Amino acid sequence: MLTDLQVAVLGGDARQIEIIRKLTELDAKVYLAGFDQLEQSFTGAVKERVEDLPFEHLDALVLPVAGIKATGEIETVFSSEPIYLTREMLKKTPAHCSIFTGISPPLLTEMAKEADRKLIRLFDRNDVAIYNSIPTAEGAVMMASQHTDFTIHGSTVAVLGMGRVGMSTARVFHNLGAKVKAGARKSEHFARAIEIGLTPFAIDQLPQQSESLDIIINTIPSLVITPQSIARMKPHTLIIDLASKPGGTDFRFAQKRGIKAILALGLPGIVAPKTEGQILAGVLTELLKDNNLQ
Amino acid sequence: MLTDLQVAVLGGDARQIEIIRKLTELDAKVYLAGFDQLEQSFTGAVKERVEDLPFEHLDALVLPVAGIKATGEIETVFSSEPIYLTREMLKKTPAHCSIFTGISPPLLTEMAKEADRKLIRLFDRNDVAIYNSIPTAEGAVMMASQHTDFTIHGSTVAVLGMGRVGMSTARVFHNLGAKVKAGARKSEHFARAIEIGLTPFAIDQLPQQSESLDIIINTIPSLVITPQSIARMKPHTLIIDLASKPGGTDFRFAQKRGIKAILALGLPGIVAPKTEGQILAGVLTELLKDNNLQ
Amino acid sequence: MLTDLQVAVLGGDARQIEIIRKLTELDAKVYLAGFDQLEQSFTGAVKERVEDLPFEHLDALVLPVAGIKATGEIETVFSSEPIYLTREMLKKTPAHCSIFTGISPPLLTEMAKEADRKLIRLFDRNDVAIYNSIPTAEGAVMMASQHTDFTIHGSTVAVLGMGRVGMSTARVFHNLGAKVKAGARKSEHFARAIEIGLTPFAIDQLPQQSESLDIIINTIPSLVITPQSIARMKPHTLIIDLASKPGGTDFRFAQKRGIKAILALGLPGIVAPKTEGQILAGVLTELLKDNNLQ
Amino acid sequence: MLTDLQVAVLGGDARQIEIIRKLTELDAKVYLAGFDQLEQSFTGAVKERVEDLPFEHLDALVLPVAGIKATGEIETVFSSEPIYLTREMLKKTPAHCSIFTGISPPLLTEMAKEADRKLIRLFDRNDVAIYNSIPTAEGAVMMASQHTDFTIHGSTVAVLGMGRVGMSTARVFHNLGAKVKAGARKSEHFARAIEIGLTPFAIDQLPQQSESLDIIINTIPSLVITPQSIARMKPHTLIIDLASKPGGTDFRFAQKRGIKAILALGLPGIVAPKTEGQILAGVLTELLKDNNLQ
Repeated sequence: MLTDLQVAVLGGDARQIEIIRKLTELDAKVYLAGFDQLEQSFTGAVKERVEDLPFEHLDALVLPVAGIKATGEIETVFSSEPIYLTREMLKKTPAHCSIFTGISPPLLTEMAKEADRKLIRLFDRNDVAIYNSIPTAEGAVMMASQHTDFTIHGSTVAVLGMGRVGMSTARVFHNLGAKVKAGARKSEHFARAIEIGLTPFAIDQLPQQSESLDIIINTIPSLVITPQSIARMKPHTLIIDLASKPGGTDFRFAQKRGIKAILALGLPGIVAPKTEGQILAGVLTELLKDNNLQ
Repeated sequence: MLTDLQVAVLGGDARQIEIIRKLTELDAKVYLAGFDQLEQSFTGAVKERVEDLPFEHLDALVLPVAGIKATGEIETVFSSEPIYLTREMLKKTPAHCSIFTGISPPLLTEMAKEADRKLIRLFDRNDVAIYNSIPTAEGAVMMASQHTDFTIHGSTVAVLGMGRVGMSTARVFHNLGAKVKAGARKSEHFARAIEIGLTPFAIDQLPQQSESLDIIINTIPSLVITPQSIARMKPHTLIIDLASKPGGTDFRFAQKRGIKAILALGLPGIVAPKTEGQILAGVLTELLKDNNLQ
Repeated sequence: MLTDLQVAVLGGDARQIEIIRKLTELDAKVYLAGFDQLEQSFTGAVKERVEDLPFEHLDALVLPVAGIKATGEIETVFSSEPIYLTREMLKKTPAHCSIFTGISPPLLTEMAKEADRKLIRLFDRNDVAIYNSIPTAEGAVMMASQHTDFTIHGSTVAVLGMGRVGMSTARVFHNLGAKVKAGARKSEHFARAIEIGLTPFAIDQLPQQSESLDIIINTIPSLVITPQSIARMKPHTLIIDLASKPGGTDFRFAQKRGIKAILALGLPGIVAPKTEGQILAGVLTELLKDNNLQ
Repeated sequence: MLTDLQVAVLGGDARQIEIIRKLTELDAKVYLAGFDQLEQSFTGAVKERVEDLPFEHLDALVLPVAGIKATGEIETVFSSEPIYLTREMLKKTPAHCSIFTGISPPLLTEMAKEADRKLIRLFDRNDVAIYNSIPTAEGAVMMASQHTDFTIHGSTVAVLGMGRVGMSTARVFHNLGAKVKAGARKSEHFARAIEIGLTPFAIDQLPQQSESLDIIINTIPSLVITPQSIARMKPHTLIIDLASKPGGTDFRFAQKRGIKAILALGLPGIVAPKTEGQILAGVLTELLKDNNLQ
């Protein structure tokens, strides 16, 4: 339980609802800023104007997954009024107050550093990345269904990268009956791929693999799907690039060659915002239980 | 090989392309009627006007999956001209000529009977139904992703009916990490459900199960999702009804209660027309090999 | 519940214990004959000498899975005294009394017919066969581990027959990472094999498949593993024959060629007697609930 | 290819055969010492007395998986004569010569250090550990079948540790239809367990979990299965301890309580020596290709 903890949730979207639900279930005292149009109410949560928040008593401050804008504005879908996070607000919090965000833009990083407050980037954590790999993989399945005229079952799919997202995605396509080839570099990833039932190959051999592939899913954040590979693909090949901007695909060349290539970012928030909210809520409250007992 | 066989393909859609491809690969002589706007060309296939087809030499006649309209018109996406199948045409064919269709509307059934020609309803066959259960299941996955805000993984899904479609669909959702409950009637279906790793329940217990369910997928063509069940569902429950028209759901009551319910028909043709074409092509050519060696 | 039902259990082995447990849990009145050395006691079950059983009040009579011997003797591991079933005993039972056995030797079939009592062969039932396919498949896995020097993972395994046992066994080996080829005859079994992720082949093509195989598991009760197939197998190939006596393998030829071939009968009773007892108990009590409400 | 490489294989068991096979297939020049009773012959491999080996030309030296005994003796099943590795032999090799072993006893480590030769402990490598997790998991399945009277399917199994072996083992039991609980410490292992479909729990909660378990498989090399846990287990619970000696189980207490507990070491060499030989051969030759190009 989080009894006696005081947490402010500032703006956000549907994902924040799950965080608020979990915090209140665990008996935290929750303040909501930027939620004036939220219809749902939660026992233990009160709406406040951001400037009225009791910063000096806060144990944690929860920002939207994107953190704050370069202007300091906090995005929120539950209010028509803009809200802002200021340096003064942070400084008013007690020294142990933690700031939770998904990712941290430079301004936020700098503000937290100046105020000497702990900044927790949830998306940097292994556990969050693995949990998020589940909706990401399901999103990739949905896109494969939408953008091809054949079944995943029986198709040949390459997943590039056997990290946190790659492993889950490869397994999901394998479980759906695709022949999955796993592009990897480390010998232990080759071993794990074989154990799971995939066919591993060295990523630099992608050009040689390309003509056998129906779908390519990339998770590596560097240019791995090069013109040499694209040139050898069959016309119906679909590229789903899950790596963070700008992805790992030469999109210009793909377009030129008529190969459909999609940079699919933030799938968890698109495909399953409720689940992603629950993931963040779960990890966030575990961290509060462990560390913030004041 | 189908060398020396003569087959006419009359109208249709993308699925027919795979049938034409397979027939020509196997060296059949193929006549295409209603394909004047088809850009692709196949060695061994010639376009003809329907009235110019050499009916007296045909070993088989392939209609679109829906057969013919009540007017005798054959739908085709590859021509702007309407084409028609007439009694005279059928009578001109040799006695051993087979007519392939997906389903058979009354007029077609009657015409085939009158001409005393063998009519093969591909969708009635167990093998086709099982092959088609693969794209159907993938289509159900796509719809679940599109119409919910949570992941399939970790959700509780009931699949009603453990027949050809139900078993594949249940397995796919199980493989994606859902907790799958299988609604069945026969004790052997209970046994198979347990063997696969599902939790079986008697279908008449659906009302008791309803409040535990996030997604319900029906494959039974009779009213099984009744108001008693719908009344107990959680607001976010999604019903995907795969049973043939009019489905097995009380859609009016579902709408009234704010439960999203979708009658999803013909998913293979929507989600994976190429795969479905290959399925039909595979079964059709096997039948031609076995039986029609004239 | 089975309250007010009176059931006699006559002899048997560890499997009967689970039947007795289930019957007493469901509040049946249970008589045990041939259990004088059973140490465990069950509330609601009393030991009797077989000649003292209240036949005239029995609703059901449970025999060992093998039924009775040609002499009428009932095998039991829980007594040193032989016990016998006689025609007189059967005739004393009420007309609705059911006799449960696994299989029925000719004498038993004839005795039941003469007494005009319903004889239920549990092993003939689809549900029991499917439930039993689970321990059978696990037994096949155990034998494969014991009798080869390679892993199942990565090996090529043929399963002959896609019936109740074949399907479960094929799936288990597939789930362990083997490349499973499914020998089948019906086109719908080909389709199901593909849906599950197996590679189907026509059983009469076994000779052509043989040299690619590491393990062959047969479930077809006729000679399918012929000298032509055996002659082409690699020396390390292991044959596990699950079909009822005499199996479907030419064992003499296999031995001559140095191919290890094992006729593995009654695996459920060997590998998992407790589970098999629970399976039989479950089906038997369901039947009693449905039918014998006197 | 390994053309021009010279490799000596000194003693060992069936696993070495696969290494010799692979080395010769890749065209290495192979010397076999301690193989005088080996019947099989390999093109490119010659038998030598250990003292006649051309040490000064060797690129690699392959020892048995256990390395050498404290006396310097090298175990071999293919010779009745004892063979020894001496410091002088090592010193005669060229500076780039690598010594391959599975594990390294102190004497071997010290000898390699003194000679300043690279010692490669294959069992320490992540890739080998992951590959070996496959036969280990199959061995655990075999033991579970042999030592219980119930099926794995439907049983509740705890796997302690989500490392290289734990993850594979958990997945195998999950794929066989067991309800698998994963005992873990790291939050990312919790996440991965959930992604795979397991139920994670904190290892220090094992006592609370114990009474729900039918089988416990330990992979953690420290005392985790304590008397507190054992005291709460059901009498039929089976403990399979895969952790290196002395395992992670209080075996004395288990025996006292009548709980069957087995320390199962070296399962790959027992269950699938050929596969393990192939694993070692594969990794060893990859290393030779990459590094030892002289």
